[in-house]
Amino acid sequence: MKENIDVSVIMGSDSDLPIMNDCIHFLDQMNISYEVKILSVHRTPERATEYAKELKERNVKVIIAGAGGAAHLPGVFAAMVPTVPVIGIPIQTKSLGGIDSLYSIVQMPSGIPVATVAINGAKNAAILATSILAVGNEELKSKLADFKTSLKEAVIAKDEKLQKSGVDTYLKNMN
Amino acid sequence: MKENIDVSVIMGSDSDLPIMNDCIHFLDQMNISYEVKILSVHRTPERATEYAKELKERNVKVIIAGAGGAAHLPGVFAAMVPTVPVIGIPIQTKSLGGIDSLYSIVQMPSGIPVATVAINGAKNAAILATSILAVGNEELKSKLADFKTSLKEAVIAKDEKLQKSGVDTYLKNMN
Amino acid sequence: MKENIDVSVIMGSDSDLPIMNDCIHFLDQMNISYEVKILSVHRTPERATEYAKELKERNVKVIIAGAGGAAHLPGVFAAMVPTVPVIGIPIQTKSLGGIDSLYSIVQMPSGIPVATVAINGAKNAAILATSILAVGNEELKSKLADFKTSLKEAVIAKDEKLQKSGVDTYLKNMN
Amino acid sequence: MKENIDVSVIMGSDSDLPIMNDCIHFLDQMNISYEVKILSVHRTPERATEYAKELKERNVKVIIAGAGGAAHLPGVFAAMVPTVPVIGIPIQTKSLGGIDSLYSIVQMPSGIPVATVAINGAKNAAILATSILAVGNEELKSKLADFKTSLKEAVIAKDEKLQKSGVDTYLKNMN
Amino acid sequence: MKENIDVSVIMGSDSDLPIMNDCIHFLDQMNISYEVKILSVHRTPERATEYAKELKERNVKVIIAGAGGAAHLPGVFAAMVPTVPVIGIPIQTKSLGGIDSLYSIVQMPSGIPVATVAINGAKNAAILATSILAVGNEELKSKLADFKTSLKEAVIAKDEKLQKSGVDTYLKNMN
Amino acid sequence: MKENIDVSVIMGSDSDLPIMNDCIHFLDQMNISYEVKILSVHRTPERATEYAKELKERNVKVIIAGAGGAAHLPGVFAAMVPTVPVIGIPIQTKSLGGIDSLYSIVQMPSGIPVATVAINGAKNAAILATSILAVGNEELKSKLADFKTSLKEAVIAKDEKLQKSGVDTYLKNMN
Amino acid sequence: MKENIDVSVIMGSDSDLPIMNDCIHFLDQMNISYEVKILSVHRTPERATEYAKELKERNVKVIIAGAGGAAHLPGVFAAMVPTVPVIGIPIQTKSLGGIDSLYSIVQMPSGIPVATVAINGAKNAAILATSILAVGNEELKSKLADFKTSLKEAVIAKDEKLQKSGVDTYLKNMN
Amino acid sequence: MKENIDVSVIMGSDSDLPIMNDCIHFLDQMNISYEVKILSVHRTPERATEYAKELKERNVKVIIAGAGGAAHLPGVFAAMVPTVPVIGIPIQTKSLGGIDSLYSIVQMPSGIPVATVAINGAKNAAILATSILAVGNEELKSKLADFKTSLKEAVIAKDEKLQKSGVDTYLKNMN
Repeated sequence: MKENIDVSVIMGSDSDLPIMNDCIHFLDQMNISYEVKILSVHRTPERATEYAKELKERNVKVIIAGAGGAAHLPGVFAAMVPTVPVIGIPIQTKSLGGIDSLYSIVQMPSGIPVATVAINGAKNAAILATSILAVGNEELKSKLADFKTSLKEAVIAKDEKLQKSGVDTYLKNMN
Repeated sequence: MKENIDVSVIMGSDSDLPIMNDCIHFLDQMNISYEVKILSVHRTPERATEYAKELKERNVKVIIAGAGGAAHLPGVFAAMVPTVPVIGIPIQTKSLGGIDSLYSIVQMPSGIPVATVAINGAKNAAILATSILAVGNEELKSKLADFKTSLKEAVIAKDEKLQKSGVDTYLKNMN
Repeated sequence: MKENIDVSVIMGSDSDLPIMNDCIHFLDQMNISYEVKILSVHRTPERATEYAKELKERNVKVIIAGAGGAAHLPGVFAAMVPTVPVIGIPIQTKSLGGIDSLYSIVQMPSGIPVATVAINGAKNAAILATSILAVGNEELKSKLADFKTSLKEAVIAKDEKLQKSGVDTYLKNMN
Repeated sequence: MKENIDVSVIMGSDSDLPIMNDCIHFLDQMNISYEVKILSVHRTPERATEYAKELKERNVKVIIAGAGGAAHLPGVFAAMVPTVPVIGIPIQTKSLGGIDSLYSIVQMPSGIPVATVAINGAKNAAILATSILAVGNEELKSKLADFKTSLKEAVIAKDEKLQKSGVDTYLKNMN
Repeated sequence: MKENIDVSVIMGSDSDLPIMNDCIHFLDQMNISYEVKILSVHRTPERATEYAKELKERNVKVIIAGAGGAAHLPGVFAAMVPTVPVIGIPIQTKSLGGIDSLYSIVQMPSGIPVATVAINGAKNAAILATSILAVGNEELKSKLADFKTSLKEAVIAKDEKLQKSGVDTYLKNMN
Repeated sequence: MKENIDVSVIMGSDSDLPIMNDCIHFLDQMNISYEVKILSVHRTPERATEYAKELKERNVKVIIAGAGGAAHLPGVFAAMVPTVPVIGIPIQTKSLGGIDSLYSIVQMPSGIPVATVAINGAKNAAILATSILAVGNEELKSKLADFKTSLKEAVIAKDEKLQKSGVDTYLKNMN
Repeated sequence: MKENIDVSVIMGSDSDLPIMNDCIHFLDQMNISYEVKILSVHRTPERATEYAKELKERNVKVIIAGAGGAAHLPGVFAAMVPTVPVIGIPIQTKSLGGIDSLYSIVQMPSGIPVATVAINGAKNAAILATSILAVGNEELKSKLADFKTSLKEAVIAKDEKLQKSGVDTYLKNMN
Repeated sequence: MKENIDVSVIMGSDSDLPIMNDCIHFLDQMNISYEVKILSVHRTPERATEYAKELKERNVKVIIAGAGGAAHLPGVFAAMVPTVPVIGIPIQTKSLGGIDSLYSIVQMPSGIPVATVAINGAKNAAILATSILAVGNEELKSKLADFKTSLKEAVIAKDEKLQKSGVDTYLKNMN
């Protein structure tokens, strides 16, 4: 039997991988165990069902699912692994900008929530997963706090650079 | 084993039944064999999978699925019964008017279409199912043609009434 | 008199042809007889009426119509060939992304459905047409099942490649 | 043969008549000759074609068409009576508020415009028709100018009443 | 005093000129007298008021106004030249695709219609203006009918080319 | 000549008065001098122009304008009284919920801003006007600060009531 | 110092309480410790800051925040309590149906996710919170599994009732 | 202690700086004292609170805040500096075009307005700020009037150029 993992990262198509990569990088950075799968409730429904069953047996803690258009992957996994929090990432679409993905993921019926993040918000999905895993894990909480501090420091550093250089110089250096 | 039926009419919640009833009435009117099921890919995923398998074995010819919000039922049945045409009915929602249902049903990925009708268009779903069944069935085609003629005659009768009575009288009689 | 065909593929403008080509290719792949016509209910209304009449006489089985903006072609053919299933493809538009096309096609009044697929979903229109023709045609059903299996295998192959190569290598090979 | 009329007022369903009545009243007020027809390009396509032909022969000057949802009536009449200005009224819909009607009417392709007014703007359609007929008709122009003056005076009278009574009294008298 | 013209073509900014040019070309083609003005109810309100007054005195027959964003030009001219039909062209915008322009133009209050055409539909505005001028002008009506016939013939020619060459060759020749 | 006022409150129709009343009440509460006018850039364009001129001469400090649909009143006054801040209130509409009003008011072109508040946000318009007048007026600033404190205290009082009574009792007392 | 709680349920206004009550009931049902607060980042910013600080000290595990319109409460708490998962509930609004609330909550910038549920999805927020708390708590996980089973059974019971009674009887009994 | 300034220009990220630069340039042109800060209520909440406090003490007169997506910066500053007018600039977003930013900024609850300008309307924010500062400052009012006159003259110059050169030449010179 396969080893346990904390997070399963799934996506409906490999065309979502460049976006989903932001999620994967952050999990690496937090040293969280995960695996990445391409599988589709539309094209590989049996595989999806099997994998959901496997995730339950392997006691996965959080599922992150990215999907675009009529984006059913997060909701169907929320149904099939019903006690595990599922985070949904609406992938941007060419025709509708991702509103279709967003509505398909966030508007779940009573009983089966999906924790939805912003359109293309793959990194935020990983951060949210980290905060969930950190509920009972002080070490991880501390790592996450450090990351949040680094975000803060980056903004402060930019502001200080702006105060020193002035707007025109800052803008020139941006390009 | 259960008998074969031509059409399976499914919905995610009994709250959709008043709308779906327009669909059922029309199938009755066309004398098409059907069965109606309440089942949900979110709340009863195993049942949905079983029922999909059963439908394949019983050689169902058309599936009609109504769902609202993050409406996954039509698309997931299209995935699980992959050679049978699935007609999706987006059910109107209180907050977004049914745009969420529409996008969740119509924006299916390449490979797995759902034949989508108008928001709350349950009767049209049944008419579409009839036209599909009529492809190889002259008797049903003729029945459908009669129905279409009755639609035409109803409009013509209304117009004739309007020409005779004038607008004001017609409006008074509408209320 | 012209020979019978199973599917008529119509579009309002030759600018839709590059999108509609996905539909045509799939019909070829399934070995379904079809013909392709450029004709417009707005620019060539008499031609459209004539052609609709011709399609009825030639016993066409399914009509696939692609149109953009105030997209009336699918709905008007559904009216003029009233017992034949009509599949509508909303073509993406520059200003509104194709929401205009989608609403103009899907929101048909009671009595006259159009089986609507995703924005630019031309291939899915052909797949839906195939599933309709397959209702009374076991050979075609089997061909369609093979295609669906190939979809599944493609996803599985991608996932296996991903498991072997890892995310970074996979992404590098995508470009 | 039927007599000539200046304006033909058409609608797809008698359920649109209460809204369209605002249009009819204004034509009466301007003493413009018109006729009102219920007919549908979806339910009565042959009738629509015939009536369009008749309107050309009877030299109709303006066509006003109201329709809701996938609202094709105005655009198809613009196609079938190609040199006559067609004014389209998007009728409000329950699910989408009339955005579907608006897009279906206003987003016409190059070559076939429909002069679109506001959602449920039936009176404005009649006013627009009047201004079109007034292009070569000084008497009608003068009548229209009088109507516009009455609009102005109504606003001025309301403002004067407000200045005299104050806001609180004005609001009490509104209910 | 300036000479009379049939059509005044106005726009709020010279950035609209490339789109508005489609309108101007068609008026040229129909040999309709017109003039083109850049003027803004926001940046040059006095000029707009003066020009509106001038247009009334010069008996302009139709006004065509293009504007984007909070597009007030067509509606304000409809107010200031109250008996003349005003055609509004919603110009596409970068952020909202032109929905803002469309709503600002089409949703006029009762009493003051603007005849709205599609987003960026400048050519259609000119065609609509022609049909209005043609109400009492058989020669112009005939010219417009010829144009409409040419539209029809262009579609027919494309279809014939497609029937001869087949889809693949046609597509190759498009690029 | 009329006396000077700090704020002019204008609206396009008396049907907006019940909403605009929230604005008027707050100005009363702050003891700010104001006047209320019903006038329309569409129905009474000359009056609007005159009144704008008058406002300039009377040194009005802030203009508050409410309008619905194709809502041009705020933008046109911003054009005609170009150095005075204009606050626009998008009035909710039956068909589009007020998105039409919002876009018509907020999407002003470069050079002519309108300070837009929420749909039906008439009270907020008055609060914003107060904050503008308070820039050089310590007494008014202090009054506004007191109002803001009262807002805060109301929320705190509600929370305390909730803490004491518990959710069920609180909810019962709400009805 | 106050006792620790697992979940803090906050809302911007007591008008949100009837919706938020669905959330509170579910937490009761799961026997999860929580407290409910009315507080606003707009009307009581200092209180919000204090309470956020307090929540950090009391080691709250999950925050649930409901807000409507420009709904900043969930996002600002996600910023102020940066390592704790925050679940946001977009409250339906009268003018825009809650799209404004949804966008304000879900479209958070990189670094600060909010786990967004459906518009008015207060019960789902509580279910999601439960699944988060259940990550390291087998007893709670089992309780949640029981609830999910009850959902399933309710659907199955409804379907069985439908199979027995038939559609017409079922519909009669619904009213 | 830092010196007083009239305007504080804040933004959530330096990626907004190229847009915000239009605002800064105009303040320079009007010779208004200002400072520019990058700070985020999401990434640097404590800094934001401190800076808000500082702005109150330094008697800032107007705050201009640009933000995109779930854009909370303007509203939260309106809460924290409650008597100072806050102008919000919704920054365009890739997925939703800036509708998310617009709704997050304009739909503020009763009591806490944000003066919202167009999507990416940074220059207009500065113009609005100028008009606010000009309420009690005749010199600034006169400078603003000069700018508005220059806008007018620019439009008039373009129109004159167009009248002289004709459309074709004008268009050629635009590229």
